Amino acid sequence: MRGVVMHAPGDVRVEERPDPRIELPTDAIIRLTAACVCGSDLWPYRGIEKLEGAAPMGHEYVGVVEEVGGEVRTVRPGQFVVGSFWASDNTCEICRAGYQSGCVHRTLMGTIGTQAEYARIPLADGTLVATPEMPPADLIPGYLAASDVLGTGWFGAVAAEAGPGRTVAVVGDGAVGLLAVLAAKQLGAERIIAMSRHAPRQQLAREFGATDIVTERGDEGIARIKDLTGGLGAHSVVEAVGTQESMMQAINSARRGGHVGFVGVTHDVALPGMDVFNALVHLHGGPAPVRRFLPDLMRLIGERTIDPGKVFDLDLPLDRAADGYRAMDERRAIKTLLRP
Amino acid sequence: MRGVVMHAPGDVRVEERPDPRIELPTDAIIRLTAACVCGSDLWPYRGIEKLEGAAPMGHEYVGVVEEVGGEVRTVRPGQFVVGSFWASDNTCEICRAGYQSGCVHRTLMGTIGTQAEYARIPLADGTLVATPEMPPADLIPGYLAASDVLGTGWFGAVAAEAGPGRTVAVVGDGAVGLLAVLAAKQLGAERIIAMSRHAPRQQLAREFGATDIVTERGDEGIARIKDLTGGLGAHSVVEAVGTQESMMQAINSARRGGHVGFVGVTHDVALPGMDVFNALVHLHGGPAPVRRFLPDLMRLIGERTIDPGKVFDLDLPLDRAADGYRAMDERRAIKTLLRP
Repeated sequence: MRGVVMHAPGDVRVEERPDPRIELPTDAIIRLTAACVCGSDLWPYRGIEKLEGAAPMGHEYVGVVEEVGGEVRTVRPGQFVVGSFWASDNTCEICRAGYQSGCVHRTLMGTIGTQAEYARIPLADGTLVATPEMPPADLIPGYLAASDVLGTGWFGAVAAEAGPGRTVAVVGDGAVGLLAVLAAKQLGAERIIAMSRHAPRQQLAREFGATDIVTERGDEGIARIKDLTGGLGAHSVVEAVGTQESMMQAINSARRGGHVGFVGVTHDVALPGMDVFNALVHLHGGPAPVRRFLPDLMRLIGERTIDPGKVFDLDLPLDRAADGYRAMDERRAIKTLLRP
Repeated sequence: MRGVVMHAPGDVRVEERPDPRIELPTDAIIRLTAACVCGSDLWPYRGIEKLEGAAPMGHEYVGVVEEVGGEVRTVRPGQFVVGSFWASDNTCEICRAGYQSGCVHRTLMGTIGTQAEYARIPLADGTLVATPEMPPADLIPGYLAASDVLGTGWFGAVAAEAGPGRTVAVVGDGAVGLLAVLAAKQLGAERIIAMSRHAPRQQLAREFGATDIVTERGDEGIARIKDLTGGLGAHSVVEAVGTQESMMQAINSARRGGHVGFVGVTHDVALPGMDVFNALVHLHGGPAPVRRFLPDLMRLIGERTIDPGKVFDLDLPLDRAADGYRAMDERRAIKTLLRP
């Protein structure tokens, strides 16, 4: 089969890879309907995260089940399925508490590589959620978003305790940040402040429910958030970047007693203890337990209550994956969808 | 009046200071019944925290109201009162959300210095809570503990979401850590693991409700906590030290999805972003909003349901404050009570 392999920073190729096969009786094989490029794929692409040799890429996926192992009970061949970027058993104590991304048997899909024609999904019963029927083509991007960026933005908003009566600020205008805006809106937030200086992203943030846009960053951005919140800071802040500046901007934009949900994968971040102590905020984040939210999110997408697929502004055949990476790297695209 | 002044690291003197007087109509003047030395007073005593010239010391206090300003409504001369180490209005939006230590009008009592005969209490209506009647002498240490160490340990346990069915680990066996054990017990925790290598403190931890003692620290301590929790880590961890090692020990002793309440004042701590991200825990802490808990804690003390005063194992007249500091610095005493 064909699949994306990264050989070095900036060097992404679509090449022949071995067809996946059932390795464990809990596995399923899916034929990918669509996959995509994640903001986190750009870290190795930019040479910031080290590559250990040539790596199959991709961890987001929607597809049709081709084959299941002997112990798989909840999905069957022919079904359209969505799964999280962490495979999880969904039965252990950590999963039952809603932290499937911390499952004791978790497997990172990134090591498998879903930017491909087929993929093996470990722990299929725990990982995959099937739609009631084959979805129409225009909903494919939405379901694909649920696999990671929507679930991650949603977790960020939940971790920040976005809800009725709350003012929510979102740091980061990538796909995750934009979908955190959508999540905050769905969760009932009263006011949603998107921090963005890019007009097309500001526009999408407004479509998703942002009531205010703040273009300033760093201390000036914090001051603007304080201005908009009676000097107190936001109740809830979602951090969706992962740098030192964005983490401190998020922590210092929250009011004392407020909540920061951080979902940007951190790089070269060190949180000064005294600043975190004095901020007196709640901090929660990490790899999103997307599986917790997946059934609800898929229902909202299927009912057309939400349209998270709007974050895909570039739609390419798999063979043009390299163009898709480049467009995101140069910030010409928010997020690239790839069709095998 | 006489009061404690720190002139330099290790140099603590009791000397004549001006009598406090009502400065604002919201002030009260109290005559101290008892005060004490806090673990945080040891940071400047040891030269780790810089002193800006001679400093009046002390921020914990119980006493009898001598005089109130013209706008004070809820306390009156003759009443026995307890207050938090942060004076707060208890009416602003942050206070109403339960974060009185983040009050928009907060004043740190440490700048006033309660290791003295008298003290001015700003924002008396918001800060002080009176007992129904003059308490018996044997309850004075308990009420004094409520002013900071009990309220702080309690906040740590609440921030760590200690409760029924939960396993709670406490990092730190100072007065705050020991009282976090007491709090976890009162909050209904199923299992309470005190991390301590000092026999008298282990003994007090057991009296306060610890079910297990772990003497190992660092990675070995984390491994022991994992052993005791089916490999998962504790649901709730209270951090009551404030060093890099203790913070990381706390974060890594919690299970994924678990809660860390940190109340040790951090010194030279930098939390690595990737470790915090991958831990997938909730972090909450900072200066404890003691005032939130004070009415309940005072009731529990008055009813003799809890006896937090046990943490005072050295009871000295104010004039011997220097001996009290020395005993705590040398870890001969857990906590020193001072009687003016």
